[in-house]
Amino acid sequence: RTAEMAKLTQLIDNEIFQAYATYATIVLLKMMLVSCVTVYFRMSRKAFANPEDLPERGENAKKYLRTDADVERVRRCHLNDLENVVPFFGIGLLYALSGPELSTALLHFRIFAGARILHTIAYLAPLPQPSRGLSWLVGYAVTISMAYKVLKTALYL
Amino acid sequence: RTAEMAKLTQLIDNEIFQAYATYATIVLLKMMLVSCVTVYFRMSRKAFANPEDLPERGENAKKYLRTDADVERVRRCHLNDLENVVPFFGIGLLYALSGPELSTALLHFRIFAGARILHTIAYLAPLPQPSRGLSWLVGYAVTISMAYKVLKTALYL
Amino acid sequence: RTAEMAKLTQLIDNEIFQAYATYATIVLLKMMLVSCVTVYFRMSRKAFANPEDLPERGENAKKYLRTDADVERVRRCHLNDLENVVPFFGIGLLYALSGPELSTALLHFRIFAGARILHTIAYLAPLPQPSRGLSWLVGYAVTISMAYKVLKTALYL
Repeated sequence: RTAEMAKLTQLIDNEIFQAYATYATIVLLKMMLVSCVTVYFRMSRKAFANPEDLPERGENAKKYLRTDADVERVRRCHLNDLENVVPFFGIGLLYALSGPELSTALLHFRIFAGARILHTIAYLAPLPQPSRGLSWLVGYAVTISMAYKVLKTALYL
Repeated sequence: RTAEMAKLTQLIDNEIFQAYATYATIVLLKMMLVSCVTVYFRMSRKAFANPEDLPERGENAKKYLRTDADVERVRRCHLNDLENVVPFFGIGLLYALSGPELSTALLHFRIFAGARILHTIAYLAPLPQPSRGLSWLVGYAVTISMAYKVLKTALYL
Repeated sequence: RTAEMAKLTQLIDNEIFQAYATYATIVLLKMMLVSCVTVYFRMSRKAFANPEDLPERGENAKKYLRTDADVERVRRCHLNDLENVVPFFGIGLLYALSGPELSTALLHFRIFAGARILHTIAYLAPLPQPSRGLSWLVGYAVTISMAYKVLKTALYL
């Protein structure tokens, strides 16, 4: 039992994997936070997508079945997060297992997490461009850089 | 060769990792099932998004290039699944590697899988609120709880 | 230090895991490429979703805040990628750890990657149906086949 537990926690005892686990969890939690922002805007703007979600019943309530510019903005922000956090999580996991230098790995993870936090702020504030565009590009470039390391280490076609 | 295979199957021989693999596969398969529901509703409601998908050719067929309330409902259900299953898969993997108690891990995985299956039923039936809202919240809380364990075990900033 | 690195690179030194890492990275990079296609079409079609993205200021620029058929097509392609690449990444990782034969695993990964590349070409060209439908179905079936192996090896409810 103890030996088995030791084997299981082998990965998580490695500093590079710990760094990956920390930053991957942070960006996934940040993405989850956007769900709460959507709920907040749907409630405060009274703009719902499903009839069963309406705060009141009757014909009069149907006016709340509508799209709202702020709600749609949060939804685009959430979808952009999915489109970028999924590749980071996947490629980042393989990168963490491909034997990078700890300092290099930390640099990748920190820049990605910072860029995505900035991206969310820039999308929701909203900040003037190119703040959102640049923060997207930085996260994208970090993921490409990790993918290059994975393919260099593990290429098996 | 045999020694290498043994190393490879080390993770999958661990009960906690087996439980994670089982429930992660179940919720991913459940999410994939929603794709089939979308195809079914697009066919039966004759509501398509792409001209090349229309069941017949000619001007008359263009009326099928439309949105349908049932199709849009399934698509929202699918997107909500992505937004919640991705964090569960990612944080759950790191959680399974962070050395939790087997019984605690099983509790997290079972509650999450149950909540997401209920969420899909509540979305597609649809059931009256707060059934969908609560099932979403339960899955969300389980993921936060696992994230807390990961960060407590592996925090490396 | 060296012993620790050796443990860390144990997974990535395994041929099955290398094959998984290679094809998972390829399909994630392919999915990321669709982001660039979206940006290209938004720029060339001058169809933007956010006021701060408009190429010029003033009342006259508001006409560019619109949806465009080509942009929407790329966005559907991207979402379909997410819906299918996420299950492949997740189930494929568990499958690679479930001790499959190398040749069987390679067959799964190669067919999936080929099918998804074809799917993107069929969606964006667009090619006449059933090319897109079939390429979707092939990727779907490969993922189900891997899920079956995972559950057969690791089922722990």
